[in-house]
Amino acid sequence: MAQHLVTFHLDDPALGAHAPLGSHEPPHPVHVPTGTLVTEAAHTAGVEITQPCGGQGRCGRCAVHITNGDVRRRSTLRLSAEDVAAGYTLACQSVVEGDVSVTVPPQEKIERRLTTDRVVAEVEVPIGYDARSMQTIQRVSLSLTPPSLDDQTDDWSRLVTALRQQADIEEVQVSLPLLRRLGSILRDADWQVTAVFDSALRIPHSAIRLIDLRPQESPLFGLAIDIGTTTVSCWLVDLISGKVMAQVAEYNGQIARGEDVISRIIYASKNGSSAEMQALVIDTINSLIAAACEKAKVDPQNIFKATIAGNSTMMHLLLDILAASIRLAPFVTAINHVPALTANDLNLKINPEATVDCLPGVASYVGADITAGVLSSGMEDGEPLTLFMDVGTNGEIVLGNRDWLVTCACSAGPAFEGAGVVHGMRATRGAIEEVWINGDTFEPTYRVIGNIKPRGICGSGLIALLSELFLTGVLDKGGNLNSHLMLEADDSPPLQTVGLSHAAGGSTARIRRGEHGLEYVVAWAHETGHGQDIVITHVDVDNLLRAKAAIYAGYTVLAERVGVPLESVERFLIGGSFGKYINVEKAVQIGLLPDLPWEQFQFLGNTSVKGAYRALLNRNERARVTEIASRMTYIELSADNTFYEAFTSALFLPHTDLDKFPSVAQALNKA
Amino acid sequence: MAQHLVTFHLDDPALGAHAPLGSHEPPHPVHVPTGTLVTEAAHTAGVEITQPCGGQGRCGRCAVHITNGDVRRRSTLRLSAEDVAAGYTLACQSVVEGDVSVTVPPQEKIERRLTTDRVVAEVEVPIGYDARSMQTIQRVSLSLTPPSLDDQTDDWSRLVTALRQQADIEEVQVSLPLLRRLGSILRDADWQVTAVFDSALRIPHSAIRLIDLRPQESPLFGLAIDIGTTTVSCWLVDLISGKVMAQVAEYNGQIARGEDVISRIIYASKNGSSAEMQALVIDTINSLIAAACEKAKVDPQNIFKATIAGNSTMMHLLLDILAASIRLAPFVTAINHVPALTANDLNLKINPEATVDCLPGVASYVGADITAGVLSSGMEDGEPLTLFMDVGTNGEIVLGNRDWLVTCACSAGPAFEGAGVVHGMRATRGAIEEVWINGDTFEPTYRVIGNIKPRGICGSGLIALLSELFLTGVLDKGGNLNSHLMLEADDSPPLQTVGLSHAAGGSTARIRRGEHGLEYVVAWAHETGHGQDIVITHVDVDNLLRAKAAIYAGYTVLAERVGVPLESVERFLIGGSFGKYINVEKAVQIGLLPDLPWEQFQFLGNTSVKGAYRALLNRNERARVTEIASRMTYIELSADNTFYEAFTSALFLPHTDLDKFPSVAQALNKA
Repeated sequence: MAQHLVTFHLDDPALGAHAPLGSHEPPHPVHVPTGTLVTEAAHTAGVEITQPCGGQGRCGRCAVHITNGDVRRRSTLRLSAEDVAAGYTLACQSVVEGDVSVTVPPQEKIERRLTTDRVVAEVEVPIGYDARSMQTIQRVSLSLTPPSLDDQTDDWSRLVTALRQQADIEEVQVSLPLLRRLGSILRDADWQVTAVFDSALRIPHSAIRLIDLRPQESPLFGLAIDIGTTTVSCWLVDLISGKVMAQVAEYNGQIARGEDVISRIIYASKNGSSAEMQALVIDTINSLIAAACEKAKVDPQNIFKATIAGNSTMMHLLLDILAASIRLAPFVTAINHVPALTANDLNLKINPEATVDCLPGVASYVGADITAGVLSSGMEDGEPLTLFMDVGTNGEIVLGNRDWLVTCACSAGPAFEGAGVVHGMRATRGAIEEVWINGDTFEPTYRVIGNIKPRGICGSGLIALLSELFLTGVLDKGGNLNSHLMLEADDSPPLQTVGLSHAAGGSTARIRRGEHGLEYVVAWAHETGHGQDIVITHVDVDNLLRAKAAIYAGYTVLAERVGVPLESVERFLIGGSFGKYINVEKAVQIGLLPDLPWEQFQFLGNTSVKGAYRALLNRNERARVTEIASRMTYIELSADNTFYEAFTSALFLPHTDLDKFPSVAQALNKA
Repeated sequence: MAQHLVTFHLDDPALGAHAPLGSHEPPHPVHVPTGTLVTEAAHTAGVEITQPCGGQGRCGRCAVHITNGDVRRRSTLRLSAEDVAAGYTLACQSVVEGDVSVTVPPQEKIERRLTTDRVVAEVEVPIGYDARSMQTIQRVSLSLTPPSLDDQTDDWSRLVTALRQQADIEEVQVSLPLLRRLGSILRDADWQVTAVFDSALRIPHSAIRLIDLRPQESPLFGLAIDIGTTTVSCWLVDLISGKVMAQVAEYNGQIARGEDVISRIIYASKNGSSAEMQALVIDTINSLIAAACEKAKVDPQNIFKATIAGNSTMMHLLLDILAASIRLAPFVTAINHVPALTANDLNLKINPEATVDCLPGVASYVGADITAGVLSSGMEDGEPLTLFMDVGTNGEIVLGNRDWLVTCACSAGPAFEGAGVVHGMRATRGAIEEVWINGDTFEPTYRVIGNIKPRGICGSGLIALLSELFLTGVLDKGGNLNSHLMLEADDSPPLQTVGLSHAAGGSTARIRRGEHGLEYVVAWAHETGHGQDIVITHVDVDNLLRAKAAIYAGYTVLAERVGVPLESVERFLIGGSFGKYINVEKAVQIGLLPDLPWEQFQFLGNTSVKGAYRALLNRNERARVTEIASRMTYIELSADNTFYEAFTSALFLPHTDLDKFPSVAQALNKA
């Protein structure tokens, strides 16, 4: 087969955005056969091109510039005709058929990833931790009688006897690697050792697992980890005091292979890519472990347990278990209750025999992050009817109390995380996080994370923006921008009939016709960090409405299915980083949250890592997660039309039926 | 540090005796620093020089010829002054200090190893095997309901439910690698699978271990393996019928690193060599598996269990567990009861999740080969007082019946396997296995394995030779050759006062003075396969006497310790390949076996692999081995002087006290 020379240029090699990690040299040209994708050629050359949609040509984030030669373009969706004419193409959709030079522009996503430092979660006070006997990881000092000609018992039996006599432990499991070192450990320590073991799964008639033998009393550390689709969070915990020694977080290394779980499953299903996906997230976790250990001055060999939560897809990818069935009807996982593993099984850089405990999930789209979240929320132990919602890239909802628990998932999509929105971005430095719009002039005021020039809009900013645009009449209840408010008369009629305008009259240059139809300018080019206007387009609004409608339909249908009126919900708990900074009033105004008294809403932050933390420390809490997983009844929303109908009715601001949002109706009347 | 060029020449490169496996090219010269041992330099060059004594300079088997340059000789023990003058040196004792050329002569041991084909054990009728429910490895066909939107149970729980409902299995263990394939196995098989599991360790409240899922009914095969210090034996077994499909055996690949367990422990204790020792025996086992599978046309993926017996050192080296403490007082093992492992843990080339069950040992020198041997002998289940003896490189003895069992080990040494005897060899083609000597002419007659020209003398041949030399008066009761029978008068007086001569007078050219003192010529050069006289020397006789004295002292002291007269032993069972062809009468005549009625002796062959076979098939038998191991009381012979005294008294033919051997006294009177 014909071979072609493909040369890559990085637009900013000093930045090293796409360069092999740690390298600042320009990539070497590569020879590839006819038919190779530009993304594959780039991978061969050591250049990693971000493919947030998993290489499906949907997201447009892998656009590159062909500066010499040409490629066959399978799809140019998401590129303008001008871009294509200028030589731009989607790397994931471009087939090499001749020698070609490719310039890879710096990508906003990757740049952000590299320039944004670790996202450090706020330090929280650890939960009270006094039930010492309930510790999962325990240690006991043993004094063994040395062998003699009168007592030639083998080393292992000698240890087992000491464990029985001195620690009341009847049965012990041990790994081959530890057995290999046993003889020298015991002799080097002169038969005085501290045994570290995991008793979390200690049930009658079952063995405890010996993790390590230490020459002297050893500190005991553990990790609580939440693997989010976007962010991986890791707490380093002193297992004796329960104290959190360090909290670190970082973007999930898999992001470059797909922004949502579906894209990642598609990517992982490609031949040989599942091991790559596993390696990416394990690299992320190992880098977090190294950072946490450095911060707290802890020897990783003294970390004896890692308790991990995450959605079902993240868990499957972590373990390199085939996740394809999660994506395809009837949407089942390979496994929800994963048996205990060791650090060695996953190449985690802690004590190789440390237990790795993956918390149990319930279904394909209700994973261990939700069971951990429910544990951490305490809802399953109390009387009040509670609705727990975790909105990340997907939305998962749990309704119930100590008597019953039902759950569902709605595919909200990542719009509120900034994807599918032209100037959307995650909640990092440079993101507009709050917006106010003047009802007379339609001029906005905004607040930016880090108090620097804005580069985009994050979730809370988008909610505020939608709400303000709606209340000021810039958007109608159908989500259409009001063309009558344009400064210069627009020749073309609005796409849909514009509904009741709440605007006070007048007009503004901020509403204009852009490439994708009408758009509203939030920040002019001279105010922004990248020198371009920051806008919200008609398409963006549509995407955001679909996301909020999916969430609203999710919890209303769930409540309906169990015959509980939404108004009877006493507590509305919101987990996940999404909810942490949003303005409840504005979220209600756009119909994302139900119109309940504000004091019923509570933002809990990362409930997944908090639940993992509790299960890491305490055997009873660990047992409760399993109980929660088996108690939760999963309801498949796609099983009939109810969800679709509720979704369609919710594709309005705040809703088709304004009676459901009396406080919003009141605000509209005032406006 | 100065580097020197070392060039190796193989005396017979076509033979490839020392060449890298499969290579027939001459080895490349290597550069090594000052101080490198010739054996190490050879290893670097890909030339493996046999070191039966583990590189201690004791055995003299690694002699090489320095043809250019010179080396520093640490020790020349075992080399004659002429050899040293001619440029011979011990490779394990020679230090490189300049450029040097080394010629590696073909070594008898290695040559034999390569030219002797697989030693195939005789086919034996398998034990009756009708207790199907007692099978260790079981299979069950399962029909799973495919998932649907109404039943989104995860794959694993679906399987667990089917196992509970269709096979009455309550709890199942599974490995991560099998979980990884679970989704595709179930879907490819359209939810109709055969589960293969190990129930050997199925006890109340304990889980069974799932080994594999097969798309259709799968045959079930297993391996019974005995790892001998010299020979590894492997039976391929149909686990359904109990039929032995193939029996193969091969020299243990570790032989080149030491002939006895002590030499191997020393070699393995050298930095980094324990993994090499493990790899050597695993290579041997894998080559046996491949041969057995080819012979029986069996797919190795259908082998679901391997049950392994062997002495404690072999077990430690197999698992790469530190064996150093076995060798040093107080002689303890790291572990006697090894937990169940998988083929994957040891790189055995069968189903990767197959159980590897290492049978339990009792002490450093009473290993799983003996517990398996006791199982196979049935002595622990019967009433008659039985003495079971397994003589290989070491001698292990068990005395008892269904009520009690005591055991000891005596370091007999490998003299009866041909080591430490100038013309000793193993019982393969070309070995003299039986000898008769004419009492008048002192001329021998002999029988050779394979009916070819002799190359040496094996164990049974040595026993016969000693007995005949003794009965004809060539040897006195102290083991001294009778110099008065020499054809030409010997000027030098005999080393010790010659005792009573039973010879009929006359003289013979077969008794002569050799390099190591007096010797007897068994075969003249023109009769032999290698064109050299085959002799037995005074030193050889000494070594053989020490070996037989150790064994005799072992069982007599053991009987004494428990207060049982040796005469009350009703059955004397002999296991191991050693005993299979020996002549009981002659073994009694030299005082190796006690003077009991011949019909009480029974040769059982390889009782270790037979015991492994029973434990492989049947759960009850497997449980019995564990029970046997815990019932056996180990008695350390070196704890006081009793053994040494008994040993010293037994250093005679047949014994200091002829009253202990009435039948021999009678034979002497006749002679």
